[in-house]
Amino acid sequence: MVPFGTGTGLEGGVNAVQGGVCFDLSRMAAISELSLEDFSVAVEPGVTRKALNSHLRGTGLWFPVDPGADASLCGMAATGASGTNAVRYGTMRPNVLNLRVVLPDGSLLHTAGPGRQARKSAAGYDLTSLFVGSEGTLGFLTQATLRLHPLPEAVAAAVCSFPSVQAAVACTVQVLQAAVPVARIELLDEVMAGACSRYSRLELPEAATLFLELHGSQQGLAEQQQQAEELVRLHGGSIPAWARAQEEREQLWSARHSAWFAALALRPGCQGYSTDVCVPISRLPGVVVETQRDLRDSGLTGPMVGHVGDGNFHCILVFRPEDTDEAQRVHDFAERLGRRALAAGGTCTGEHGVGLGKRALLREELGPQGLDTMRRIKAALDPHHLMNPGKVL
Amino acid sequence: MVPFGTGTGLEGGVNAVQGGVCFDLSRMAAISELSLEDFSVAVEPGVTRKALNSHLRGTGLWFPVDPGADASLCGMAATGASGTNAVRYGTMRPNVLNLRVVLPDGSLLHTAGPGRQARKSAAGYDLTSLFVGSEGTLGFLTQATLRLHPLPEAVAAAVCSFPSVQAAVACTVQVLQAAVPVARIELLDEVMAGACSRYSRLELPEAATLFLELHGSQQGLAEQQQQAEELVRLHGGSIPAWARAQEEREQLWSARHSAWFAALALRPGCQGYSTDVCVPISRLPGVVVETQRDLRDSGLTGPMVGHVGDGNFHCILVFRPEDTDEAQRVHDFAERLGRRALAAGGTCTGEHGVGLGKRALLREELGPQGLDTMRRIKAALDPHHLMNPGKVL
Repeated sequence: MVPFGTGTGLEGGVNAVQGGVCFDLSRMAAISELSLEDFSVAVEPGVTRKALNSHLRGTGLWFPVDPGADASLCGMAATGASGTNAVRYGTMRPNVLNLRVVLPDGSLLHTAGPGRQARKSAAGYDLTSLFVGSEGTLGFLTQATLRLHPLPEAVAAAVCSFPSVQAAVACTVQVLQAAVPVARIELLDEVMAGACSRYSRLELPEAATLFLELHGSQQGLAEQQQQAEELVRLHGGSIPAWARAQEEREQLWSARHSAWFAALALRPGCQGYSTDVCVPISRLPGVVVETQRDLRDSGLTGPMVGHVGDGNFHCILVFRPEDTDEAQRVHDFAERLGRRALAAGGTCTGEHGVGLGKRALLREELGPQGLDTMRRIKAALDPHHLMNPGKVL
Repeated sequence: MVPFGTGTGLEGGVNAVQGGVCFDLSRMAAISELSLEDFSVAVEPGVTRKALNSHLRGTGLWFPVDPGADASLCGMAATGASGTNAVRYGTMRPNVLNLRVVLPDGSLLHTAGPGRQARKSAAGYDLTSLFVGSEGTLGFLTQATLRLHPLPEAVAAAVCSFPSVQAAVACTVQVLQAAVPVARIELLDEVMAGACSRYSRLELPEAATLFLELHGSQQGLAEQQQQAEELVRLHGGSIPAWARAQEEREQLWSARHSAWFAALALRPGCQGYSTDVCVPISRLPGVVVETQRDLRDSGLTGPMVGHVGDGNFHCILVFRPEDTDEAQRVHDFAERLGRRALAAGGTCTGEHGVGLGKRALLREELGPQGLDTMRRIKAALDPHHLMNPGKVL
């Protein structure tokens, strides 16, 4: 049994590799229990992140987790997704308060108990966090109760160019260490900046680039802007021109969210594959530089884009799958990058999940004891291995 | 096998109710892998929260989770503890990056994989969150890798008296809704305010009281103070006299952390029992008022103190255990309060855990399917039921 939401996952989580029945949940699309006082709402699997935020328009609240695609929120919970706002608002995990799950035997589980939505709890094992990121292998998520956030009073976004990727990453590390409460801090390498500029008709220099966004009160924002500018300048970045108007900001972020398509447009007719490593911030500059060198040495097109505030970045490899030699080089590069992240104390998947593609690396990441523990849990909750077979473990 | 840290838990988690072997882990006291760049550190079970913060002195970093007692950090992870700073910095769960666990069969598990400490991960089931709050029923936590936070540039604390508990709670709800990034917001009812005032030699009026603390930049703090003052005034509260000096602030918070002893001093020679419900913010005023009425009707001494920014509050019931009638009234009151919280969509335990005392209520909170799911996980990871028997489930 394979749960299907919007089919926008990147690791083949919805592929029925062993046959079976695929359940399209997209027509379960109710939004309910919106509480403006408790900052919470319940959504069914057919509700996407954009649909929820449209529904919330005018309430002063929003849901910040934003993977590239307009994914189903329950699918995002199943994947453990995040996006550009995670550095400030967290990933899906801290933003899910409760899940309604159909277990493999057909019984109904509410992970935090039926109807519960306390902001914190010490009541037994954290089943909510267990099902977030379970990728359909433990049951069907049929409703998610989500934590909403107040819309910031003021928002400013800016794009800064840097002399090198190292400089942009070093600037990011310092922004975090200075505890500037940055809402978004996204890296594009020179190839990706050029690709996005052409694809979304912006006028970005072909240079390592940071997209920044700050959220705060009017007064607090001015202070954050000043702090950010100082650090950008210190690392040789261009002076940010702050966009305050919503339309202008949306144009920027729409360009960022189109990075996948901008990368594909570099080589029309080719296929894309995205890596997804995440490393401790202190190791980020080294890992990024080594990865760029590896890309060049491998003769691959793989523009880089990343949620660098979390230590998470993607190379979007654009290749011709018919060219078996190139496909093999892509595969080898992705594996080396995964191992490089593991050697740096990181993970092979920051937000895309394991699905089919990362199963081999998962074993190296967790060690035999970690994998065995996960398998015991899988066997305990899905003893007949009915749910999404062949995935994750 | 019962793991023992500092023995400061409140739900009997370390009691060897079925006999067995109790493991005192307090001499495993290493602090290692401190990374000022990654804001992380690893601690063994003998390290308490105060010992860690002493160790961090001068680094510009701190660990904010602060239950009343100077508990072991691994014990706090096992309990899913929180404290006064959770409204801003979260509970133990989001602040644990990795756990080293000795499983019941003696094998060693690293919940996020050996040596890993990425800020986020989508690599399989979230074993870290599963072991946080497992109360020693799944294995021994022998090391926790924790997320540290930058010390705020400026801090201000204040005490405000209100005409009623309702007014203080309503003020709290508005502070949250206005998205003032309050670091601590703690309620004391009139009885507790009087008790703390006498016990810690402060000069608090015997009135419903909020202890507030704000963290920010110098400039940002002024703005927060202004916002908070407006809301306090709007609800009839006394104008806060802000304490900026560390010594003065520490005196305030030491009084708050002594609430347990201040309550016991109300009736010398008596015993204390703390309730621990947590409800959605919108339901907090109603639940608090009903609970105060219930206390009066039951003829019990039970001053109230709470992390009201999370919807979590405690009644510290002070009673003579030899008086079987009073002890029964305490028991009945605690059960009614737990059910009142459940009826309001809350939990019977926000931060103290289930241990022995909350097992009956846990069943009502989770429903049969939730409890059954937890039992399956317990059986999968501890098939011979060796770990902390008789607790939680």
